[in-house]
Amino acid sequence: MDETPDQKLPKRYEALADEIAASIRSGALRAGDRLPSVRQASAARRVSPSTVFEAYYLLEARGLIAARPRSGYYVTAAQPVAQQRMPEPAQPVGEVQAVAVAERVQQLLGLARERDLAPLGSAFPSPALFPLATLSRALGRAMRVLDPWRTVEDLSPGHEGLRRQIAIRYIGAGFSLDPAELVICNGAMEALNLCLEAVTRPGDLVAVESPCFYGALQALERLGLRAVEVATDPRGGVDLGSLAALLERHPIKACWLMPNFQNPLGSLMPVENKRALVALLRERGVPLIEDDVYGELYFGERRPPPAKAFDEAGLVLHCGSFSKSLAPGYRVGWAAAGRHAQEVARRKLMSSLSAAVPSQEGLAEYLRHGAYDRHLRQLRRTLADGQARALRAIDKHFPPGTRVTRPEGGYFCWVELPPAVDALALHRLALSHRISVAPGALFSADQRFRHHLRINYGHPEGGRTEAALKTLGQLARSLCG
Amino acid sequence: MDETPDQKLPKRYEALADEIAASIRSGALRAGDRLPSVRQASAARRVSPSTVFEAYYLLEARGLIAARPRSGYYVTAAQPVAQQRMPEPAQPVGEVQAVAVAERVQQLLGLARERDLAPLGSAFPSPALFPLATLSRALGRAMRVLDPWRTVEDLSPGHEGLRRQIAIRYIGAGFSLDPAELVICNGAMEALNLCLEAVTRPGDLVAVESPCFYGALQALERLGLRAVEVATDPRGGVDLGSLAALLERHPIKACWLMPNFQNPLGSLMPVENKRALVALLRERGVPLIEDDVYGELYFGERRPPPAKAFDEAGLVLHCGSFSKSLAPGYRVGWAAAGRHAQEVARRKLMSSLSAAVPSQEGLAEYLRHGAYDRHLRQLRRTLADGQARALRAIDKHFPPGTRVTRPEGGYFCWVELPPAVDALALHRLALSHRISVAPGALFSADQRFRHHLRINYGHPEGGRTEAALKTLGQLARSLCG
Repeated sequence: MDETPDQKLPKRYEALADEIAASIRSGALRAGDRLPSVRQASAARRVSPSTVFEAYYLLEARGLIAARPRSGYYVTAAQPVAQQRMPEPAQPVGEVQAVAVAERVQQLLGLARERDLAPLGSAFPSPALFPLATLSRALGRAMRVLDPWRTVEDLSPGHEGLRRQIAIRYIGAGFSLDPAELVICNGAMEALNLCLEAVTRPGDLVAVESPCFYGALQALERLGLRAVEVATDPRGGVDLGSLAALLERHPIKACWLMPNFQNPLGSLMPVENKRALVALLRERGVPLIEDDVYGELYFGERRPPPAKAFDEAGLVLHCGSFSKSLAPGYRVGWAAAGRHAQEVARRKLMSSLSAAVPSQEGLAEYLRHGAYDRHLRQLRRTLADGQARALRAIDKHFPPGTRVTRPEGGYFCWVELPPAVDALALHRLALSHRISVAPGALFSADQRFRHHLRINYGHPEGGRTEAALKTLGQLARSLCG
Repeated sequence: MDETPDQKLPKRYEALADEIAASIRSGALRAGDRLPSVRQASAARRVSPSTVFEAYYLLEARGLIAARPRSGYYVTAAQPVAQQRMPEPAQPVGEVQAVAVAERVQQLLGLARERDLAPLGSAFPSPALFPLATLSRALGRAMRVLDPWRTVEDLSPGHEGLRRQIAIRYIGAGFSLDPAELVICNGAMEALNLCLEAVTRPGDLVAVESPCFYGALQALERLGLRAVEVATDPRGGVDLGSLAALLERHPIKACWLMPNFQNPLGSLMPVENKRALVALLRERGVPLIEDDVYGELYFGERRPPPAKAFDEAGLVLHCGSFSKSLAPGYRVGWAAAGRHAQEVARRKLMSSLSAAVPSQEGLAEYLRHGAYDRHLRQLRRTLADGQARALRAIDKHFPPGTRVTRPEGGYFCWVELPPAVDALALHRLALSHRISVAPGALFSADQRFRHHLRINYGHPEGGRTEAALKTLGQLARSLCG
């Protein structure tokens, strides 16, 4: 076994700040509530006053609390606002649909990569949030000593040490994963595509969320599959009653779902729902393709388990990636495909042989010696702060009647504008102001969600997101008619 | 435009040696022929005697000539032997076939990666032949100065500078390629798969060579396509008369061919045949998927042009890669997909987003500042020598009646054993002697080629290949009955 992964605990003040932030998120502390004085908190917690000071200072920087002169610290107003205005769950009609989204997606997102656009529509968090310099040093070290034979040996299922490191990390999510089940892929996107290929044939029917990650729709389209969209709660994820009814009515061959921090809603399925989902699908013998690329980006106390944690029948094809949490551009993701693991490994070998050796070696080296957990704690905090600031800006600048999700992780929120606002028109208007957004039409096979947007709050640099949201809100107001 | 790629000329003695080697290969110089004396050659060529000495010394090291004391240098016997015993062209019956090879391929090749096996069955040349240290320094340099935004911007179609460098190299093959047509992929394997996807629908019929690269058969299987095998000459590649007849009889939707150094035969289509092939397919509106991964590994004077060089209609989907010529394991290949370029780029984005950024950056940096051409000259010489030695060993040790191809590039030759030798039995027997071979059954949908082997001569270290061929020859003789 390699050295233990970096598990340094957060500093004391950081832990205290995180705890208070969690209370604010859960609603235990509400806007206007006064925090205990530094002296009270110091005594109650048995920490030094300076620890409390530092925690409060951090929370202030994150916009969660504000000091009032000679009065103390108070919870700011941003949080509950959003909570009161959660978008309504979508109620898809349960129709089977052919999928043809690729052109629309390319057209709408093709522009979003231009660097001078404010990237509210981006699919990625800011690359400035990742330890790219440390990673590239790890990459350099690993490649300097690389045994040349490794360049032809590390074929599918991929780098053995890296697979072991990935498996170990799931212990933090409360279950153990067998490294033998893991196949390293060129990012989660390839992993998901291969899993879908492994369990379907052209013409088959696949259940997806509503709204749904456009990448899933593209994959369905590529493989000639049909979609049926399942009602999905902006807070708790896919509705199990609706899913059960659809399974009854239709010959669904697979589900593609994101139980943790769904894209675009940010919804998080309660643990009990995940367990029930796996049981329901097991009963029917329907495989679940689980996209868990945001699982490490939780704002709460600990990593939410994926549905895979409850998979005893090997029917969950779980996919993860380093692209959103550590190493964008390295193109290293994985599938833990249960009883389909061999088939996925074979398809990986047939379709693109293996993931890039430099990327795999660099990541394995970083995970052995790096500070992944420390980086992740910092990243989660930054994203949570980004969310708080974005919600405040939306609250302040968007038209009355706007609703928005308040995810417990990830870097997207889902905005439901007043019905009068045509999101595609807003998208065009925003582009002319050098702001990208992801309009709701991207997230459904039938282009519902006509007055919805997915907003990326993972670009905290220099208040750019808030400025863009202010402009966007004004543009939305101008479209209210 | 970046700095000019490294185009240093070969040293004078290397050029002279290459010229003589070409004369031997072409048959202008035959076994037993005496070379001009050093004095004669020096005068005739206007080079110093020491240049001639060095050239002769090099040719001797390559096994092409031998010194006889007090008599001079003579061409050795290895070359013409093989020429006289070229395998017969296969005559497939032209039946349409479902393809189901994946399990056989995995089973037969799964073992071939164990390091202590003599790798006659390997698909790769020795990793020791590549400038991996120089490459990893280039990778380190590139990553140290990488603008973080590049990690999310270099999505499909891929790194712009790298695409330009790749396009420039085709000038050496006598034509120019538009970088805008290029899509960077995770190796040629992905490029080929995406091209095949782009021009077919499940159930379609695809024409392939006979024998045929098993990777093509696997790709057909993965996509639910059917194969029809075309007679292929071990020397000149696919037979155009047979192909024309099949196009007449069957609704062929695409061809997947390797005009340069075909795997497994090593055949090279004459330039005129390539031109005629493109014209024939254009007439029929049938796209050609061209696998050109060995195109840079020529032993002759200059790079043979790919069929793409004659493509005016945009019907050739040309695929190449650095995996066999420069950077194994980096997983960087490309498709120049003509009129299907946009569709291939879109499919790349949908199925695995982009190739790994570190690999792309490292290769772009190496190509700007490295010595790719110098490396290639060395690599070609090493492979040509390896071939000469392998053919000599086969000539000496294999059973009478053995035939073998003598390719003008690449690192495979195709061996036709006497009909009594069951290649699968020989495969098993060889494994028990820690030698891998690629039995003929891998290279056809209907498992013809029952007494054939593909032999990899790209592992020149320490005479290991020759020793393994000696053992293999003895085992083959023992199976002759």
